[in-house]
Amino acid sequence: MAKVKNILFVMADQLRRDYLSCYGHTFLKTPTIDALAMRGVRFTQAVTSSPVCGPARMSLYTGRTAFSHGASWNFVPLPIGEFTLGDYLRPHGIRVALAGKTHMRADIEGMQQLGISAGSDLGILASECGFEPWERDDGEHPNQKFNTDLAYNKWLRSHGYESPNPWNDFANAGQGPNSEKMTGWALRNSIYPARIDKAHSETAYMTQRAIDFINDAGDQPWVLHLSYIKPHWPYIAPDPYHSMFKGAELPKANKHIKEKETAHPVYRAFMNMEIGKTFSRDDVRQTVLPAYMGLVKEIDDQLARVIDHLKENQLLENTLIIFTSDHGDYMGDHWLGEKEMFHEPSVSVPLIIVDPDPKADSTRGQVEDRLVEGIDILPTMLDALNVNVPMQRIEGHSLLAKIRGQANVKPWRQAAFSEIDYSYYQARLELGIEPSQARAYMLKTHDWKYVYYKGFRQQLFDLKNDPLELEDLGESKNTQSIRSEFQGELLERLTDRRNRVTISDDTVRERTAGAEKVGIIIGRW
Amino acid sequence: MAKVKNILFVMADQLRRDYLSCYGHTFLKTPTIDALAMRGVRFTQAVTSSPVCGPARMSLYTGRTAFSHGASWNFVPLPIGEFTLGDYLRPHGIRVALAGKTHMRADIEGMQQLGISAGSDLGILASECGFEPWERDDGEHPNQKFNTDLAYNKWLRSHGYESPNPWNDFANAGQGPNSEKMTGWALRNSIYPARIDKAHSETAYMTQRAIDFINDAGDQPWVLHLSYIKPHWPYIAPDPYHSMFKGAELPKANKHIKEKETAHPVYRAFMNMEIGKTFSRDDVRQTVLPAYMGLVKEIDDQLARVIDHLKENQLLENTLIIFTSDHGDYMGDHWLGEKEMFHEPSVSVPLIIVDPDPKADSTRGQVEDRLVEGIDILPTMLDALNVNVPMQRIEGHSLLAKIRGQANVKPWRQAAFSEIDYSYYQARLELGIEPSQARAYMLKTHDWKYVYYKGFRQQLFDLKNDPLELEDLGESKNTQSIRSEFQGELLERLTDRRNRVTISDDTVRERTAGAEKVGIIIGRW
Repeated sequence: MAKVKNILFVMADQLRRDYLSCYGHTFLKTPTIDALAMRGVRFTQAVTSSPVCGPARMSLYTGRTAFSHGASWNFVPLPIGEFTLGDYLRPHGIRVALAGKTHMRADIEGMQQLGISAGSDLGILASECGFEPWERDDGEHPNQKFNTDLAYNKWLRSHGYESPNPWNDFANAGQGPNSEKMTGWALRNSIYPARIDKAHSETAYMTQRAIDFINDAGDQPWVLHLSYIKPHWPYIAPDPYHSMFKGAELPKANKHIKEKETAHPVYRAFMNMEIGKTFSRDDVRQTVLPAYMGLVKEIDDQLARVIDHLKENQLLENTLIIFTSDHGDYMGDHWLGEKEMFHEPSVSVPLIIVDPDPKADSTRGQVEDRLVEGIDILPTMLDALNVNVPMQRIEGHSLLAKIRGQANVKPWRQAAFSEIDYSYYQARLELGIEPSQARAYMLKTHDWKYVYYKGFRQQLFDLKNDPLELEDLGESKNTQSIRSEFQGELLERLTDRRNRVTISDDTVRERTAGAEKVGIIIGRW
Repeated sequence: MAKVKNILFVMADQLRRDYLSCYGHTFLKTPTIDALAMRGVRFTQAVTSSPVCGPARMSLYTGRTAFSHGASWNFVPLPIGEFTLGDYLRPHGIRVALAGKTHMRADIEGMQQLGISAGSDLGILASECGFEPWERDDGEHPNQKFNTDLAYNKWLRSHGYESPNPWNDFANAGQGPNSEKMTGWALRNSIYPARIDKAHSETAYMTQRAIDFINDAGDQPWVLHLSYIKPHWPYIAPDPYHSMFKGAELPKANKHIKEKETAHPVYRAFMNMEIGKTFSRDDVRQTVLPAYMGLVKEIDDQLARVIDHLKENQLLENTLIIFTSDHGDYMGDHWLGEKEMFHEPSVSVPLIIVDPDPKADSTRGQVEDRLVEGIDILPTMLDALNVNVPMQRIEGHSLLAKIRGQANVKPWRQAAFSEIDYSYYQARLELGIEPSQARAYMLKTHDWKYVYYKGFRQQLFDLKNDPLELEDLGESKNTQSIRSEFQGELLERLTDRRNRVTISDDTVRERTAGAEKVGIIIGRW
């Protein structure tokens, strides 16, 4: 083991924390990821900065909360002035590359305003949130609107999958009983295997592209973001994964009828959407979950190839590995599907960090219960690579001192924060509110979860006595003082945003009470 | 009177609202400004978005609150991605020019990051917050560090003021009894006249430059920001202004010993600074105030030249005129000098808007008591020029409907907001807090003023029963529920910030529940 030279930053999209065996799944075994946990630190209380792909990812790539970086939902461009991982690391000679999904939207208007051509080197990086697009693929290619020239599609065709869009017609379509195509966009078809060999799945392809990158990078230090599109929908898994969990006794959905009776208006509006209604059906879960689990299992298998490749090339010794997801998946819990709200299945994420440095030997295999947020990942990476963390922009905190078992870990946050912009959802229309008002903010401690819905009443869950979050105490008189405390805490948190981004704290310190140094004397007789 | 074609946007720096006769000053007569009030609407409850030059101005030029645009104090650059008045108007063929002060700092690091040269056309505009720098001059030239090539200095030398820095040695220095130079940086010298003819003062010079611009613009529509440096310190006025108010019976400072006894910790730290101590002395006020008043009177006289010039050129008919200041000046009230805190002498500003459009005829001479903020100015200007106000960026509201007496004025804000970053002050060191924690937020209604100091107790003033703001009820048990209400209001306000800047509300509306339109079907059986 040696100093950190490279970082492998692995993400699985929409992966629930409790669908990994190291996080307690009883029969879905994920030995590759479990082995990472044994070699590193496994965080049990990590939350996403926003339980939806785009903003969660932009928080990971900027170290800033969703309403600080501004890309508050999937189709909202990251403002051109935001600094990303690549911006911080590239000047230090580190290659920062992407294989997979980011959900980044380029700020074309902002670039035009500043005379930046989208096709220039700078424009390309700015369009890929600072990553060298070794392989950019967000998945979701029902047609070729977003990408007429998808590399994965070309590769599939070269392997004999003849179609204008083999992503849609093979990789994400089911093979019906008479070899007919069953669209992956219908949940009922999750029972079918993908029309593709497992060697040609998205997960397998992206794994190969990651290995290719590692070979290409050679001796240059690198950060590779291997960003798997699965187990995100379409929930279609190739053989043998599609059938591995068929007939298994699945965990029951965590829901209770009283949740419907007392539902918060925003929560109710989400329950009323088609997604919530569909996933509330047991037959849907029984159909979808085995495919979902197969996709998770496939990632675990494929990830083993990358780890083996690092090992064979003596790179495990100097490569820090991060494994996480951008958010979870309700899968029918709380009468919901998808994500977006703040219940645990949606907002909590797995997080495992393997630090090869001998200083981290004392914490290998440790389970860490402190509260962690998505915004902590970027400063941890900078810290591991000995790059200054500019705290006037970055809102998270490096986890490295903790991982290295240092005694001087400074006071930890008392509450984890997450926030959402739900303006794009049908739910907003049902609620009859303006886009700019469709916002909510979560604070979670070890004992409580508090949600501030702009313009609506608050939510409160007693995590100690109601760990399944079935009883909303947001209107209970007994908990009024707790909600009031959280309100104060939220004010502190909202005023903690790093908005004075253009001057560092150190510069402010240097210049404090410093007008006279430049000859400006104020208020002297 | 006709449609608005041009806008003259006049600002006086550090001008207290109550030092204009239309706002109630009894013997400092400001007939030019009073005449504007008679021709337009005079707002009695306008507050600055931040009671210090830089952030207040950036709020005026961006329509965004200080911690939204990010230039939270004087020396904090405006982030390169922020859109300004010029960015909004220039594409419509409108010249947007500056004569005077902005206190803008360019975001050099951000420009470098994006490959923008500071000397390019774009770089120059980005360095001047979007204004064409017809004449940029921030004042404050104790030496030539900031500007070795100051146009005003050259002009002064051409008029015989021989010195490497005539700004410092003539315009802002006093003429002692033996014709010796008395530095303008010492308050005791405010009794002396400036060493300059009134025709050569900064105020006279900038007035001439404004007139020059109007001539230069010809038929092209324009917005001219005539931004006077005075009555901001150095408090040195030329003859005859320096002596006009000598010996006048000055209003007593508004302060009470009990303010010191019960002072909020942050307020106390400001009282403890040299500025506060100095301005708490009666002899300082007696010395400085006559000069300050002279400088105000001089602006009123000079502004008359511009108005006359507009009139002579038939431009009054199509030029909207705004008169305001960036913040006030304590002048010893509340044991303080300068500005920065939220008492009325600091946070309140004059605001007069003269709209030439006949639609505004019904409101001429009207006095308007509704709550207005600095961020309302920019959308008012865009509105008057028929330019779309992009509400995903702009946080203020156009005042035009009110000025034009329209019945459909939508519900007005219940509280006016202002905020500060006091990290650069000695006070922060006394309090022993980090730069990022030195923040405070004000909400003012017609009845109350509430201040949330990050990390400290709150302040509360009962404006109805204590209009002089001498009793801080921030710790009183009786007002706990009011403070709690304000805390909720502050949460609403902080979550109202326009952070999703790259997508308009209309686009969100169009795309709400729109995934299927692009072929993405989520959660369907």
